[in-house]
Amino acid sequence: MQLPSHLLERAVDEIAQLPGIGRRTALRLVLHLLKQPEEQSLRLANALSELRTNIGFCTSCHLISDTEICSICADAKRNREELCIVEDIQDVLAIEKTAQYRGLYHVLGGKISPIDGIGPQDLFIEPLLEKLRPGDVKEVIFALSPTIEGDTTNFYIYRKIKDLPIKTSTIARGIAVGDELEYADEITLGRSIVQRVPYENSI
Amino acid sequence: MQLPSHLLERAVDEIAQLPGIGRRTALRLVLHLLKQPEEQSLRLANALSELRTNIGFCTSCHLISDTEICSICADAKRNREELCIVEDIQDVLAIEKTAQYRGLYHVLGGKISPIDGIGPQDLFIEPLLEKLRPGDVKEVIFALSPTIEGDTTNFYIYRKIKDLPIKTSTIARGIAVGDELEYADEITLGRSIVQRVPYENSI
Repeated sequence: MQLPSHLLERAVDEIAQLPGIGRRTALRLVLHLLKQPEEQSLRLANALSELRTNIGFCTSCHLISDTEICSICADAKRNREELCIVEDIQDVLAIEKTAQYRGLYHVLGGKISPIDGIGPQDLFIEPLLEKLRPGDVKEVIFALSPTIEGDTTNFYIYRKIKDLPIKTSTIARGIAVGDELEYADEITLGRSIVQRVPYENSI
Repeated sequence: MQLPSHLLERAVDEIAQLPGIGRRTALRLVLHLLKQPEEQSLRLANALSELRTNIGFCTSCHLISDTEICSICADAKRNREELCIVEDIQDVLAIEKTAQYRGLYHVLGGKISPIDGIGPQDLFIEPLLEKLRPGDVKEVIFALSPTIEGDTTNFYIYRKIKDLPIKTSTIARGIAVGDELEYADEITLGRSIVQRVPYENSI
């Protein structure tokens, strides 16, 4: 697709680098912007460059934050004895939305994935271990995705902390609420039988 | 979804204003950008603001162009007696891709659509009429989408130029190549029977 303008070409190229957006969608987005008031594009451009230049992370949990300590870590009502290990900020948002967890988080910034060249040293694992050493945290909850990479990361961290007096747990894996049993994959179904819970606990 | 950073919130808000992108996708895109080198976000921001500030349009056909006359209008090999009326730049790109048309274009910039508050005065119809007056153009080809708005726009222009010595035509409407007859809608199928073409012309 030969575009009639170099400026257009450049904008389409840059947008098409975003995940899940091809050149055709990129062109549609750019042409949409051109039909909107000039301020909208400039606000978008400005928001992106400011975000990238000025973004900060909570020095404690590594969540994106405008302040040195994020609002969750700074919240005095949070239970400081529970620490939930997650991969990314989306996971924090997802767990927060359930309103079922009142402890603190630690964002790793990814999972150990040799295929993608991501090793333990690329994640915030060292700061996690330092955070655990003083002994304030009583329970570490692994909340990584149940994938090979997630399991590898869990296991790596588990081995590092297993001698500390800290309880470890992972989020429950099983059949999703509302799912049909016959469509569940074997591994999930098998696990959900092995790790069955007393009926009284399930209601 | 309460985001932990104002900068993040702003970037997500701006991206979520693009068509077809919700807040969840916007967040995914922004977090992707944060994982990429800083230059990528700045290049994207820069491309968008430069595009919006410096974009130009061909003074003849209103196609997006970096030069005063676009490369199609400036091409001496093009047939200046045929003028294809299209809604938008995407349509020009789509027709160019077929390599079946060697005339010039005129981009209207939209369709007449009273529901969206778009009247003839919001489109480049007046410049079109001016372009047709000298009598160089022998045929006008309506290539708007076969929708009510497209038909309305065609008819509006047709009435304005019907007394000029200019041939008018519309692109053929019928069953798409490769489509099953039984899934075609009635109106299209009906039209394709009424406007049947001699078999010799169809191969």
